[in-house]
Amino acid sequence: MKSIITRVTINTCHETELINITDKVHSEVKKSGVLSGTVFVMSLHTTTGLTVNEGLPDLEADIANYLQRLVPENYPYRHARFLHSDGQMAINAPSHLRGALLGFEAFFPIEHGVIVCGGRQTIYFVELDGPQERTYLIQILGE
Amino acid sequence: MKSIITRVTINTCHETELINITDKVHSEVKKSGVLSGTVFVMSLHTTTGLTVNEGLPDLEADIANYLQRLVPENYPYRHARFLHSDGQMAINAPSHLRGALLGFEAFFPIEHGVIVCGGRQTIYFVELDGPQERTYLIQILGE
Amino acid sequence: MKSIITRVTINTCHETELINITDKVHSEVKKSGVLSGTVFVMSLHTTTGLTVNEGLPDLEADIANYLQRLVPENYPYRHARFLHSDGQMAINAPSHLRGALLGFEAFFPIEHGVIVCGGRQTIYFVELDGPQERTYLIQILGE
Repeated sequence: MKSIITRVTINTCHETELINITDKVHSEVKKSGVLSGTVFVMSLHTTTGLTVNEGLPDLEADIANYLQRLVPENYPYRHARFLHSDGQMAINAPSHLRGALLGFEAFFPIEHGVIVCGGRQTIYFVELDGPQERTYLIQILGE
Repeated sequence: MKSIITRVTINTCHETELINITDKVHSEVKKSGVLSGTVFVMSLHTTTGLTVNEGLPDLEADIANYLQRLVPENYPYRHARFLHSDGQMAINAPSHLRGALLGFEAFFPIEHGVIVCGGRQTIYFVELDGPQERTYLIQILGE
Repeated sequence: MKSIITRVTINTCHETELINITDKVHSEVKKSGVLSGTVFVMSLHTTTGLTVNEGLPDLEADIANYLQRLVPENYPYRHARFLHSDGQMAINAPSHLRGALLGFEAFFPIEHGVIVCGGRQTIYFVELDGPQERTYLIQILGE
């Protein structure tokens, strides 16, 4: 059984942003030569998300906007004080909460060397506290 | 290592609906002859969900009702205009958002040829934009 | 391919509570001797969650508090009547709904015998209807 792990680093541009990583995940599976197995995709951060939805710019905007409304910025969060471990103020409790609701990982089966998914299923890395340099990971498990 | 992929097509009957697919997933695992491994279950759509909860009709109604309240129908969503790619009006932004919150997949270990799960853990395919014909997928990975 | 399944029983102390299980998951992976594969972690209950976030007490309190606000206690839920199957009143619809939003499982790749995750990614078992005795499961799949 092969396990091929790829780390992909990207630079996000906005505070909240959906980045379409579908092509990268599909191409890594093809490149791996794995014919049968499962691909796992995950973010390595706690103020980001990973989600699957239809690949339409309108929906990307609706998802970003909805998350911002669902978890308000103005609330007396406890995670809102100077953090000695970070050397700065913690002001991103809403980012952590949005990530908790959205989730940070997804998997897809691999069959005949390609990912099995629905025709509209687009994989998004979701920045929730940007802009920042971020890393997500693709693991291809199979043979 | 075996990878057995089964696509299951169902017809949903309501706009929002929880469909208990537990027996189907358990029986596919037994039928596969795989004694040890993992089963992955996922929806192939972007206006559906897949969730695990206790198998009670009261709770199914509460979950459906809560999702409808949490993501309101009446909001100036951007995904609300004529889509040339679909040849019709996009009016289902709330369905996409409900799916994003609920998630669309789950996994369970397989041990001694049966799924390991809690006694109350019931697997639901969740229609969020029905009624429609829908497909979910079961992958059994193991040996 | 090895599949090692460990059930871990814990006693929770509060109605809503985030319990850091990161060290246990990492140590089970090391103990297993599996060098390459995937670890799956899941709760076996339907009024609990499993989530990954930064390991800060402030954030634990914010997540618990946010879930309680997002799913209100006072609503005419249908799951609020005498259940003959349980011999008691069902009064925990909000616990089930919070669990549905949070999710109940997570996976991480294993590389060179250790879990691959982000430096801040802390694994939490989340009690949503405590205090109770609870069990979560760790499956290590690989070789």
